[in-house]
Amino acid sequence: MEQNKGRLTIPTDLDVVPETLELMARWGADAIRDADGTQFPPQLANTGAKVYATYYTTRKDNDWARENPDEVQQCYIMTAFHAAGESGPLTVPLMAGISQELMCPNHSCDTGRWWEVIDRTTGQVVPPAGWRYDPAAQTVQIEAPIPWHEYTVSFLAWLIWDPVHMYNAVVNGWQGEHQITFDVRMPKTRAWSLERLRRFLQDNPQVDVVRFTTFFHQFTLVFDELKREKYVDWYGYSASVNPVLLEQFEAEAGYPFRAEYIIDQGYYNNQYRVPTREYLDFMAFQRREVAALAKEMVDIVHQAGREAMMFLGDHWIGTEPYLDEFAAIGLDAVVGSVGNGSTLRLIADIPGVKYTEGRFLPYFFPDTFHPGGDPTAEARENWVTARRAILRKPIDRIGYGGYLKLALDFPDLIDYIEKVADEFRMLYENISGTKPFCHGTVAVLNAWGKMRSWGAHMVHHALYQKQNYSYAGVIEALSGAPFEVRFISFEDILAAGGVPAGIDVLINVGDMDTAHSGGTYWADERIVTAVRRYIAGGGGFVGVGEPTACQWQGHTFQLANALGMELERGFTLGYDKYNWDEQPHFITEDAPTIIDFGEEKGNIYALPGTTVLRQKDKSVQLAANNYGAGRCVYLSGLPYSFENNRLLHRALLWSCRKEAALHRWFSKNLFVEVHAYPGKNQYCVVNNTGLPQQTTVWREGGSSFACNLAGNEIKWFPMDQPHAAKA
Amino acid sequence: MEQNKGRLTIPTDLDVVPETLELMARWGADAIRDADGTQFPPQLANTGAKVYATYYTTRKDNDWARENPDEVQQCYIMTAFHAAGESGPLTVPLMAGISQELMCPNHSCDTGRWWEVIDRTTGQVVPPAGWRYDPAAQTVQIEAPIPWHEYTVSFLAWLIWDPVHMYNAVVNGWQGEHQITFDVRMPKTRAWSLERLRRFLQDNPQVDVVRFTTFFHQFTLVFDELKREKYVDWYGYSASVNPVLLEQFEAEAGYPFRAEYIIDQGYYNNQYRVPTREYLDFMAFQRREVAALAKEMVDIVHQAGREAMMFLGDHWIGTEPYLDEFAAIGLDAVVGSVGNGSTLRLIADIPGVKYTEGRFLPYFFPDTFHPGGDPTAEARENWVTARRAILRKPIDRIGYGGYLKLALDFPDLIDYIEKVADEFRMLYENISGTKPFCHGTVAVLNAWGKMRSWGAHMVHHALYQKQNYSYAGVIEALSGAPFEVRFISFEDILAAGGVPAGIDVLINVGDMDTAHSGGTYWADERIVTAVRRYIAGGGGFVGVGEPTACQWQGHTFQLANALGMELERGFTLGYDKYNWDEQPHFITEDAPTIIDFGEEKGNIYALPGTTVLRQKDKSVQLAANNYGAGRCVYLSGLPYSFENNRLLHRALLWSCRKEAALHRWFSKNLFVEVHAYPGKNQYCVVNNTGLPQQTTVWREGGSSFACNLAGNEIKWFPMDQPHAAKA
Repeated sequence: MEQNKGRLTIPTDLDVVPETLELMARWGADAIRDADGTQFPPQLANTGAKVYATYYTTRKDNDWARENPDEVQQCYIMTAFHAAGESGPLTVPLMAGISQELMCPNHSCDTGRWWEVIDRTTGQVVPPAGWRYDPAAQTVQIEAPIPWHEYTVSFLAWLIWDPVHMYNAVVNGWQGEHQITFDVRMPKTRAWSLERLRRFLQDNPQVDVVRFTTFFHQFTLVFDELKREKYVDWYGYSASVNPVLLEQFEAEAGYPFRAEYIIDQGYYNNQYRVPTREYLDFMAFQRREVAALAKEMVDIVHQAGREAMMFLGDHWIGTEPYLDEFAAIGLDAVVGSVGNGSTLRLIADIPGVKYTEGRFLPYFFPDTFHPGGDPTAEARENWVTARRAILRKPIDRIGYGGYLKLALDFPDLIDYIEKVADEFRMLYENISGTKPFCHGTVAVLNAWGKMRSWGAHMVHHALYQKQNYSYAGVIEALSGAPFEVRFISFEDILAAGGVPAGIDVLINVGDMDTAHSGGTYWADERIVTAVRRYIAGGGGFVGVGEPTACQWQGHTFQLANALGMELERGFTLGYDKYNWDEQPHFITEDAPTIIDFGEEKGNIYALPGTTVLRQKDKSVQLAANNYGAGRCVYLSGLPYSFENNRLLHRALLWSCRKEAALHRWFSKNLFVEVHAYPGKNQYCVVNNTGLPQQTTVWREGGSSFACNLAGNEIKWFPMDQPHAAKA
Repeated sequence: MEQNKGRLTIPTDLDVVPETLELMARWGADAIRDADGTQFPPQLANTGAKVYATYYTTRKDNDWARENPDEVQQCYIMTAFHAAGESGPLTVPLMAGISQELMCPNHSCDTGRWWEVIDRTTGQVVPPAGWRYDPAAQTVQIEAPIPWHEYTVSFLAWLIWDPVHMYNAVVNGWQGEHQITFDVRMPKTRAWSLERLRRFLQDNPQVDVVRFTTFFHQFTLVFDELKREKYVDWYGYSASVNPVLLEQFEAEAGYPFRAEYIIDQGYYNNQYRVPTREYLDFMAFQRREVAALAKEMVDIVHQAGREAMMFLGDHWIGTEPYLDEFAAIGLDAVVGSVGNGSTLRLIADIPGVKYTEGRFLPYFFPDTFHPGGDPTAEARENWVTARRAILRKPIDRIGYGGYLKLALDFPDLIDYIEKVADEFRMLYENISGTKPFCHGTVAVLNAWGKMRSWGAHMVHHALYQKQNYSYAGVIEALSGAPFEVRFISFEDILAAGGVPAGIDVLINVGDMDTAHSGGTYWADERIVTAVRRYIAGGGGFVGVGEPTACQWQGHTFQLANALGMELERGFTLGYDKYNWDEQPHFITEDAPTIIDFGEEKGNIYALPGTTVLRQKDKSVQLAANNYGAGRCVYLSGLPYSFENNRLLHRALLWSCRKEAALHRWFSKNLFVEVHAYPGKNQYCVVNNTGLPQQTTVWREGGSSFACNLAGNEIKWFPMDQPHAAKA
């Protein structure tokens, strides 16, 4: 039975050889892997399963790092703000609040060129002659600061402990040597790294798949003196720098580099920031250089007859899987951690590789696997959440990671993973290679576009943030929605001279002045006219939170008239507002009385003529408006839930004038979804909850039937035989 | 008994002559007045009471208005935003959404000069050659608009129905002729108005006090087609314009006028807007011109041996009672409506007049005086709320307005007003002419400063606004607080080269980018350094809402380090935040478990080292921080309540390092307050609630005693005789 074998990777270690063999058989695993802190047992080299080896390009050779201290990885970091007093010099400690075990200032570089002392009260740079560094005290002294101005120091630091190794070591209580991160793009390390990879391949003939973890630059991850996480940005480029690379950048960009391009006032160009031209240039430079060198490594792997897989994590910075350079690397596969539907799609949608693999939760680490822990609950939540997305766009394989030994103490989990593996293989067989039925194409518009497909609202992977769960819910809902989903940027609109063709609904979701809503892009007449033209011509537009918000020429929402909505910042309090009555509407036909809009907005009002669907304490949370031949929907927020998933589904259909298509492959019960695969002549009805559900299922053409499902059950039917279950 | 007579003005009318006489005696009224829609009965001309006559400079002579249509008052108004389509001209209706009975476009002026058509997508002005006005259709046609750009038309309109007369007529169902507003500052009307005033004085020898209602320009008040209020700004200057005056302005300012200086993108320079230089220039021009002409009128009144009183309402625009020009008018008195403590102080604190008078609520109008209405409750609430402020700075007189006849049906109210009048006279005798004990001086810092003393957070007088009650509560609390209160502007700091001397606590209260918090003033290094120097030197700083907020150089709160607080706009989500634990503190010693912060803020965090006093759902609502020798307090909001009044009191004392002075003239029970008057050797203990209260009262020097008060009771004691009640 094909469905009982394959498409599954499991971890192993020296101490669990028989158990690995047993679970391989039980779960149908066809690949086994090691992990950070484990070792691959030689006895398992010839089980018939593929052998994955985690490969660390940037660490696990402290001898090399110590012998080549000039090629240790560096990062940019900014101090806190320090105010000058009434008179006298100002001393700024560089490492206050930062773990001394993690990094140390690089003062051996030309600090006048690569460091930057900035008067943050004016934004002016303090010339190098105006300050000096004291290496013993690790302080910068500014000789003649302006009284009561605040200053920061942006400096380069050596990463003397790999941040992920530090995290793993702290979580697991490892006592061994700190692994130093070296910079593979530096000349000596580059040559040696290629050689090291060749040697690894030679020394490890049992390895079928080299799982790069990852290439050269760690995402931004900083710890404080107490080894607590201090700063994290899964998309951050701060640790991809050193003077050699920056000089290359200067040569390519044609203008001098400034530390501020990376430091960005201490905001480090995080995903809420509308990216600057210089930062976009820098990322483009890194993408090209990282891809070129990564390709060299992949080629070596291929020359050795092995596969090359990239872990979308740790040192993945610069690869940007959704941009063109990525395919040129020639990777066979990408594997990444799956936290929910969005992160599933983040992996599954990556173009340019032969296959994708999702590492599911829980990771077999002591933070979950301890007496009293419930890893099975975590596994179930993870699987059922990701399954919605798999049904739209499957990854090709699934897997687990960590210490297999820890899982053995949880027989429930062992059982559950067996079921998951079987179900995944069944799904995959039924839907791979075909396109599910879609009502149309939705494009999420923000300042990052394709580069941040599925991930623009993330800070650290699927980490919850009070400030964005109301927005991330939209992306999560889309990950399992019967729509094609694209991610476009404002630059795409500028380049195309309008909203690109083929989009049925444009979504703009985020807060004012962020990259998500777009900030000053909305004051660019090319953007605002393009989107007005698109909507008035019949396009749909869904705005969530503070869409199109940018204070300019009498509006906060620049599409106020299209949305029929405005944000009250006090400036229009003098205007009386009479449009507060909630109206019945297609969008809310099956919505609960109380809709959960998450953090909500407190100061949103509807313009006259807009249809208000929900308001709370005189702030509109949901509304609909016609604009020319197009339609707009406003939502204050949309945390992910089954109810909100349904609400968004209706909002999308209404906005693109497809209400009549609601009853195509549709479940009356909103806890159940229907996915159809015309190319394979079948559809499924899936219960997204752990409880039994009854529903009515609509097929194509108006016919419907009653359907009962057990908790989490998925039922398959042929499309051309009404009501008949497939298996 | 002096306390039974005087300091009270009551309304009268032709139909209530005997009742007026009876109530004069019962309430001890020493002045009687008419009102809009009433007539003064000749029989009451010689009762011994002063006779007030409402005098309307700008209306109640439609013959004149009709004979001089070119001198009818004008206002600037902006249309809605209209988007051009793909091609062809764009037609903008001027009067859509505006009552045709209220105004009509003035197209007889040089529209190319005084009207303005603006492309709101770019902010560019469309040259007059690019558009034409169709008087029949009341539309502007823009010949060749840019596709999908939005346009507005700013135009001058004649005010053909006085807005307050319209409001009164609509509320009372008056059927008479609409009173047209003429512009007293126009040459013909000016000359005739002075003559008209002389004739009025001659014809009305019984009038002792001419109550101007008011001078020349109505605050902004617009009604829609359904005669509903469409726009109101009690501080708005939009109806103080016409081409003649604007040419005078141009001559004075030395630069061409633009409609946009008044229109302000449709925001009409409301109090949330950081005022532009041009608008400040325009207001200054109006102040000087209004004061000069008002002085001529007041002089005429004085020459006739009468008093001149100004109603702080209706056409008061341009007088600006807190600025220097005002005193030059030479008025004897100001009267204004008292809605709460803030509006009481708004009147009581006005410098440069002989006396002030507060018109208390309820106004005797049918909206309150109808079967089932409870005017006494409104009167009690109004009096007790205002009394707190009176105890700090008394007005000199009180009064009521409207139709006396309506009040006669409510004997409860008749009784209550008798008590209020007696109590007011008693208070006045006890505290007038002396300065109450103060702990120090508090200065509210915003972009308006002294000009908007007590009123900066108002839209229309004491009107509730969801968006500002959390901020207005601070001002309301201050109106009865034992502190000197000043209002200063950022320009005051620039002019003085620092925070002016004599300030113990600086308060900045409002939302980001508003005039209240200060907007881009905080990016001005002169401001931010001045305030840092002030705090570090030992000053107190209380920030409420989004204080010092202006996105600039790595901070949203520009005083983030002093406040120890920052606003999360997504830009710092990557930073881990560990400072959430609530600490005990002097400020919250007697605070309730749940403090009402009003609308609250959802995204405020404390920097390391700040003392968090209250947080909710990971957003700090109250915190304290040391900065140099100074102290800062952050509050997310402070709606007015007795509990919050106490909270602010403690915050103020702590911020200026006067915690030790808490038990000076202090009540343990926060529903009770103590006000001391060293100059009169007495102090009072006042119950601000309608329920009996028990408390402990601290005097000077640490002695205290128990004190019981009946509901709303006020008890007086000599300062030098412990515990002895005065009367």
